[in-house]
Amino acid sequence: MTTTPKPSQERAIGTVAIRWHGSSLELLDQRLLPGEEHWITLEGAAGVAQSIRDMVVRGAPAIGISAAYGVALAARHAGGGDWKAEIKQAIRELAASRPTAVNLFWALQRMERIFHACHSLDEAVKRLASEARAIHEEDLAANFAMADHALEFIGAEAPFSVLTHCNTGALATGGYGTALGVVRRLHEEKLLADVYADETRPWLQGGRLTAWELSRDGIPVTLNADGAAAAIMARKDVRLVIVGADRITANGDVVNKIGTYSLAVLARHHKVGFMVVAPSSTVDMATASGADVAIEERDGIEIREIRGIGLAPEGINVFNPVFDVTPASLIDAIVTEKGVVHNPNITGMQALFG
Amino acid sequence: MTTTPKPSQERAIGTVAIRWHGSSLELLDQRLLPGEEHWITLEGAAGVAQSIRDMVVRGAPAIGISAAYGVALAARHAGGGDWKAEIKQAIRELAASRPTAVNLFWALQRMERIFHACHSLDEAVKRLASEARAIHEEDLAANFAMADHALEFIGAEAPFSVLTHCNTGALATGGYGTALGVVRRLHEEKLLADVYADETRPWLQGGRLTAWELSRDGIPVTLNADGAAAAIMARKDVRLVIVGADRITANGDVVNKIGTYSLAVLARHHKVGFMVVAPSSTVDMATASGADVAIEERDGIEIREIRGIGLAPEGINVFNPVFDVTPASLIDAIVTEKGVVHNPNITGMQALFG
Repeated sequence: MTTTPKPSQERAIGTVAIRWHGSSLELLDQRLLPGEEHWITLEGAAGVAQSIRDMVVRGAPAIGISAAYGVALAARHAGGGDWKAEIKQAIRELAASRPTAVNLFWALQRMERIFHACHSLDEAVKRLASEARAIHEEDLAANFAMADHALEFIGAEAPFSVLTHCNTGALATGGYGTALGVVRRLHEEKLLADVYADETRPWLQGGRLTAWELSRDGIPVTLNADGAAAAIMARKDVRLVIVGADRITANGDVVNKIGTYSLAVLARHHKVGFMVVAPSSTVDMATASGADVAIEERDGIEIREIRGIGLAPEGINVFNPVFDVTPASLIDAIVTEKGVVHNPNITGMQALFG
Repeated sequence: MTTTPKPSQERAIGTVAIRWHGSSLELLDQRLLPGEEHWITLEGAAGVAQSIRDMVVRGAPAIGISAAYGVALAARHAGGGDWKAEIKQAIRELAASRPTAVNLFWALQRMERIFHACHSLDEAVKRLASEARAIHEEDLAANFAMADHALEFIGAEAPFSVLTHCNTGALATGGYGTALGVVRRLHEEKLLADVYADETRPWLQGGRLTAWELSRDGIPVTLNADGAAAAIMARKDVRLVIVGADRITANGDVVNKIGTYSLAVLARHHKVGFMVVAPSSTVDMATASGADVAIEERDGIEIREIRGIGLAPEGINVFNPVFDVTPASLIDAIVTEKGVVHNPNITGMQALFG
């Protein structure tokens, strides 16, 4: 962990939704926000996998971090029998929890490498916990680095407004945030006029999480229906759309929350910048383009109901893809902790991640 | 009423949300759909104005029809005193109920012309009721005519899918629907593969009304989050986006439900057709362009809550415009009962409506 830069003391990292206690993991149940702050305590990988599947924890970096802790828990609580088989099974179970976010697989691969190098359960318990903590702390450090790169790239001299989608803040990461980390940094530098937050149906991450997180930290935020984004770009002083990513492919295509692609088309039409901010663990150079990524589709009940209240006729057909693909050609900049890829394409991506 | 063509007997007009009983008006409370079919009985103009303001009834044509019946009720229940002042007051109150839909003002102007020609309360009671019924029946006839014009314009030979926004069906009109009337007609002609219905936040007209209305009538429908429209255009066989209008200005700009403008930009990007279907009573040749239209903004609670359940932190800033402006340049066709304006501009609009 000596490679991890210390977080700057002046930076408020926001409300982190992951707490590690060595023999248990606590997750802030993001399904109940903003109404209720309820923490779920987990002592095994199966519970962590279930929490990822059920979206107790969401956000690609937070999913990766949680899965890493899940492997550490599997070691910590391994029975007296075949501990290697138990940890392998835990990794398999965690890998199957969500199909699209690549940080999940990246984090599990890191954990697996450590696991394969361990000769005893004792060693595995210590080293897997240490690796999970490293993944968590490096994510936070990466968020600080991304915000620095983004600010330099933006080069703003006067306050302006941004529009964002989903939640990419402290709740979605190891702290501070990816796209919302840039928002926090703009606010620290007094360069932020307002943040328009798409409410982000169906899961309402914008209203439930982004608005909650930003207002809690005294950062301006205005919530809007997803359908109002185009009118906001036409009528308001929005200079930048800033989003996170669940996977970035070798050609610079970005897989992110459903609605992101729509914003990219709208931003180009309105001559508004479109910036993607994500840790390099999101980059998947082994996948050629967005067309090669399996897009998770979730149950239609997420659209038909809210907390048991019917919003549409029972049993009606629903098309509910969780992610969409934004082609690289609509993206002005991909910002990672390793630097910025401007007008991304395969060449630019290889230069930074090859 | 001899000028009103009889509705074709083969056409199912769908579930109409307005019932006239001579001395009372019943409105299907669209706020409670799809869970509950509750009719509200009104005996005066104040109640009708309140129902328009509270969105018991919505949809520009249905608002116009309801307001007309409201004036008829004002005459029917006028006291023994100054009946002219009472009716005038009713018209004023109805006109103030919603600011954007032009059919409301158009219908009230028709009612006002009749009112001014009346010499006695008896005459007013009869003629205002008759005029309101005519407005209702002419709207239904206009919907049939629009569907015919649209089908001819589309010229399809094989089934295809459409995407629609908000609710423009029997519930929003005097029956059959505007954009959804074209959908009904495509279905009658076996030219409809599927209808993707934007759920249409914040009021969820797509899920609560369009999906309910179409499934009730055996017409295929697939509900989607508004943010998924771009991905649907990229991935699915959608040939046409088809929407209604609350006001169409002299240059062919269209004021319609928030999110419409977004769809127009997305349709152009994906080379998908964009068609607006609305009765000529929606056309406002006295207003030069969409920039001159007052856009209603409603309370942020529509975004922050659903049936009392918090979807965002209490008191958070919300930008909640009800409508947006789609510039004529993004519209392929405006269809009214008088005919089609192809690639609308001031010249084309004047040719049909001048």
